Amino acid sequence: MVIPVEDSTDPRIADYVRLRDVDLRKSLEGGRGLFLAEGEKVIRRAIAAGHRVRSMLMTAKWLDRFADLIDGDGDGDGDGVTVYLVSDEVMEGITGFQVHRGALASMERRELPSVAEVLRGARHVVVLEDLVDHTNVGAIFRCAAALGVDAIVLSPRCADPLYRRSVKVSMGSVFSVPYARLKDWHDGLAELRDHGFRLLALTPAESAVPIEEALTGERTALLLGSEGDGLSSRWLAEADQGVRIPMSREVDSLNVAAAAAIACYLLTAAAR
Amino acid sequence: MVIPVEDSTDPRIADYVRLRDVDLRKSLEGGRGLFLAEGEKVIRRAIAAGHRVRSMLMTAKWLDRFADLIDGDGDGDGDGVTVYLVSDEVMEGITGFQVHRGALASMERRELPSVAEVLRGARHVVVLEDLVDHTNVGAIFRCAAALGVDAIVLSPRCADPLYRRSVKVSMGSVFSVPYARLKDWHDGLAELRDHGFRLLALTPAESAVPIEEALTGERTALLLGSEGDGLSSRWLAEADQGVRIPMSREVDSLNVAAAAAIACYLLTAAAR
Ligand SMILES: C[S@@+](CC[C@H](N)C(=O)[O-])C[C@H]1O[C@@H](n2cnc3c(N)ncnc32)[C@H](O)[C@@H]1O
Ligand SMILES: C[S@@+](CC[C@H](N)C(=O)[O-])C[C@H]1O[C@@H](n2cnc3c(N)ncnc32)[C@H](O)[C@@H]1O
Repeated sequence: MVIPVEDSTDPRIADYVRLRDVDLRKSLEGGRGLFLAEGEKVIRRAIAAGHRVRSMLMTAKWLDRFADLIDGDGDGDGDGVTVYLVSDEVMEGITGFQVHRGALASMERRELPSVAEVLRGARHVVVLEDLVDHTNVGAIFRCAAALGVDAIVLSPRCADPLYRRSVKVSMGSVFSVPYARLKDWHDGLAELRDHGFRLLALTPAESAVPIEEALTGERTALLLGSEGDGLSSRWLAEADQGVRIPMSREVDSLNVAAAAAIACYLLTAAAR
Repeated sequence: MVIPVEDSTDPRIADYVRLRDVDLRKSLEGGRGLFLAEGEKVIRRAIAAGHRVRSMLMTAKWLDRFADLIDGDGDGDGDGVTVYLVSDEVMEGITGFQVHRGALASMERRELPSVAEVLRGARHVVVLEDLVDHTNVGAIFRCAAALGVDAIVLSPRCADPLYRRSVKVSMGSVFSVPYARLKDWHDGLAELRDHGFRLLALTPAESAVPIEEALTGERTALLLGSEGDGLSSRWLAEADQGVRIPMSREVDSLNVAAAAAIACYLLTAAAR
């Protein structure tokens, strides 16, 4: 069903307001249990991953591309999706920027699997402690998917993989790499160890072992910390071993997504 | 010298207008031979790298932190820098956003070294073909610095490492990793070969050789392509070998900065 909307304050399109306001979006999306997918490729991957479409927002020139969803055969549940049709001005007025990829969909979140579920059968996992940057989270998902990491585990406060920016940067990999969120930061790593994982804490500290010397072929979890502080002392202490990627010159550290890329490559290559 | 400025359209602060408008900034910065550094750490690294300060823009609370520059002993040339002092409102009015790191400096560009100069004595280099994304360029510089890559060579149309976003993401590594720009896209790679470099074209194509099989310890240049199109067929054909980072699942490719991280690690680790 296609419904023209002429006013950017129309409550029917309230799911889409102020996309640039990270704090507002976080509370709105959490509160309503939704997330936004941007662009045809990402929207279709989200649907394929089982997320239901609440509504879509687009300008007229994109309607044809989504005809199958509007007619009801494309989104799995047989009802056509509701499309709010707006002008370029209303699109910009509500979202706060030009939507380059042309269409937005407001999707329903699903309950995340438990940590135990995503660890079952997994061999190589990545654990992210309190990353705040959605770009880094998205980049790590893309990399994990490409390199065959089996699952990602997030600390309770780690940034949301379904935030628009993470989804986009991940190229939709947030819908293919299984992930779960720890309930407890302080004792959460024990659950990974109980599942037989060896915990390697990635840190630039000189005292850590070069990562290639620490990879054994066992079930391994790579722990990565945030841009500012790195891993907490609690997690560093809980890990089986601190490992580093050797660096040159007077550089403090690698960006966490770069460190993840190198570490995931080495971990999964050892198994190939 | 500290000069209060009360009007965001004052021509004296025209170097700083509309920081979010990439196209406008590109032509303004190119035309005037300047670039912007944001935040104390980056500004000081730029000065240490020999760039002259044209002026600075900040709110009152940052003045103390830059007292040495204002007094003239911190920037190398002995004259104090000119600081335009503005309110938070004028700062936001002119730049188009909140400047989190508190201070901006307009710096003079210097002439880049020639390709021959940066290749002299280098063993491991990265060559970027037409990357458009400043974040990727900055991320690759940070990684190259951390992993001990000796130099970066840019294609004629590759995005500018001194653009504000690149500088920031690179954590100032654009001031420590030597780089040059090819004058000629079509025949430019010949110059690298003339300097004795083996050219490895990084590509996700299945037909390429796994990268670890292709690293030999010779002088090596890693060629990386843009997010959308990857390397041009010209550069793929010019390279000595196409190499790939093996991937899993139905993933098209790694992000170019992730591919660079892995490739630079493998290249430089082989030499450690
Ligand atoms: C920007 S770094 C954090 C820097 C922080 N000052 C520290 O000392 O950990 C972000 C994360 O990337 C990973 N990382 C960065 N450089 C690394 C290196 N050379 N070796 C291992 N891990 C690294 C670590 O997991 C780190 O927590
Ligand atoms: C996003 S990719 C470009 C994808 C493009 N469709 C292609 O086929 O090249 C950007 C750049 O990252 C590098 N890259 C990405 N994945 C790679 C892989 N698995 N192996 C080698 N290089 C890769 C290549 O240099 C590529 O040009």
